[in-house]
Amino acid sequence: MLFSILDNIGTIAFAISGALTAIEKRMDIFGVLMIAIVTAFGGGTLRDILIGNFPVTWLTDLSNFYVVTGSVVITILFRKVLLKLPLSLLFFDAIGLGIFTLIGIQKGLLVNLHPLVCVLLGTVTACFGGVIRDILCNEVPAIFHKEVYATACMAGGVVFFAGEYFAFSRDVIFISTIVTIIVIRLLAVRYSWSLPHVKVWGE
Amino acid sequence: MLFSILDNIGTIAFAISGALTAIEKRMDIFGVLMIAIVTAFGGGTLRDILIGNFPVTWLTDLSNFYVVTGSVVITILFRKVLLKLPLSLLFFDAIGLGIFTLIGIQKGLLVNLHPLVCVLLGTVTACFGGVIRDILCNEVPAIFHKEVYATACMAGGVVFFAGEYFAFSRDVIFISTIVTIIVIRLLAVRYSWSLPHVKVWGE
Amino acid sequence: MLFSILDNIGTIAFAISGALTAIEKRMDIFGVLMIAIVTAFGGGTLRDILIGNFPVTWLTDLSNFYVVTGSVVITILFRKVLLKLPLSLLFFDAIGLGIFTLIGIQKGLLVNLHPLVCVLLGTVTACFGGVIRDILCNEVPAIFHKEVYATACMAGGVVFFAGEYFAFSRDVIFISTIVTIIVIRLLAVRYSWSLPHVKVWGE
Repeated sequence: MLFSILDNIGTIAFAISGALTAIEKRMDIFGVLMIAIVTAFGGGTLRDILIGNFPVTWLTDLSNFYVVTGSVVITILFRKVLLKLPLSLLFFDAIGLGIFTLIGIQKGLLVNLHPLVCVLLGTVTACFGGVIRDILCNEVPAIFHKEVYATACMAGGVVFFAGEYFAFSRDVIFISTIVTIIVIRLLAVRYSWSLPHVKVWGE
Repeated sequence: MLFSILDNIGTIAFAISGALTAIEKRMDIFGVLMIAIVTAFGGGTLRDILIGNFPVTWLTDLSNFYVVTGSVVITILFRKVLLKLPLSLLFFDAIGLGIFTLIGIQKGLLVNLHPLVCVLLGTVTACFGGVIRDILCNEVPAIFHKEVYATACMAGGVVFFAGEYFAFSRDVIFISTIVTIIVIRLLAVRYSWSLPHVKVWGE
Repeated sequence: MLFSILDNIGTIAFAISGALTAIEKRMDIFGVLMIAIVTAFGGGTLRDILIGNFPVTWLTDLSNFYVVTGSVVITILFRKVLLKLPLSLLFFDAIGLGIFTLIGIQKGLLVNLHPLVCVLLGTVTACFGGVIRDILCNEVPAIFHKEVYATACMAGGVVFFAGEYFAFSRDVIFISTIVTIIVIRLLAVRYSWSLPHVKVWGE
């Protein structure tokens, strides 16, 4: 139940982030809706495709569509307020990141994949909606050069399997995974953390 | 039979549109062929992947390859004429749009998806070949900001399920769906319809 | 055994090529790793998806991950040397091209696809990792406009099925396919071969 609520919060945050990006790119309302859908569902879709889970999740559960469509309408109506509230957006986005990573890890476990691969699947679930969004908007995906983003997901994955190793309860593992990701992500933005770039020649 | 002819017309139109785009981008003949293949098969491939229909259609039916290859040869030979005939191209393209939407809707019904999802699948089938073409050519996909395109497909989808609801005959539903899409698409170009863009600040 | 060694050489070459591209794009180390993974696994992943082979290969065989990660570490450490040795890189890359085309053709035969489609699958396996790499780096994929690359794969495919037709032994077919691709690719670079571009108007 709580899980489902958090899932919806993540979907909403990702839909809003996609819609705002599309609005800034001067897309029409169809474009805005499509980019929001792709941002919210893209990561889970790629995950489902990689592990062979068909039809992909969002085709058989319409509720997510209504959530995304509602988010887009609200984003369009309140875009001026939202653009002034990057911090609240960031917070929702971090929650989505945490939840989607957890969901991805579990989907990987369901098909008996190696923990390392599960962590990667979780990261793909959480991050690749944004990657596809950036590709469709004709930009180099932000996560490849800008911020600590996927790294937060991977850290959460490590916490997950550490929790499994020490046989903590399901609830403890779930919550600590999500909280780890959210905290790292927020701290990274707060303190402008970024991964080292590889320097060429004498830069 | 008529269906198969129309399908081929759609494939030809999409292959030509892809080839012309690649020629304008100064690609070599392999690039032109690949972009034509991607434009013609991309939407159907993405649809097949999403619903889990493997191997994807064009891998098991070579005839489509010959149609695309022939279209590319003709496009290269007659590129000067074709570039002067945007209207005939537009007309073929609109037919392709109508047919591919209809095919996508039916593939969705075959795997028992919700009508709303079927309409989206139809739209994906008709539009995403062009989206992938634009991504490969390093441009923001035209359908997200330029014209009434996907919207025509969706309108056709509404007509389809309205027809189902009123229990019209298969033929009537099929024809009215395709005609709706073609007419809306042509009118949209003729009268420069476009969807509203979302304005930011005081634009 | 030899096959497995060659496979690893191909993976290493593609991972290095991806990592160097990402370094030039000033990505952070996560971006460098991701682009290397995508370049090395992207073609095989797309092939597996098209024929419906799930979960895709690299999810169930971790050894490839270690190979890619090791390649990335070495690329970062020795980037100055590597950037001065384009010829050795080119040679590895050509080996990867040969091996991956052969693997793709055989995967197609396993699911009873037509020889023509198998050749295309082999080409996709060998080339599309690079295409996805270029898309993620926001560039028009090099193979569409730059060099004889996919064409070498296709020539290798023709050799493969010519060998099958004349009932040569497996080893002879495999080796001649790979050697054909490597030789054509190296000659193409040495003598600056390129496919004809389609001219528009009076260029």
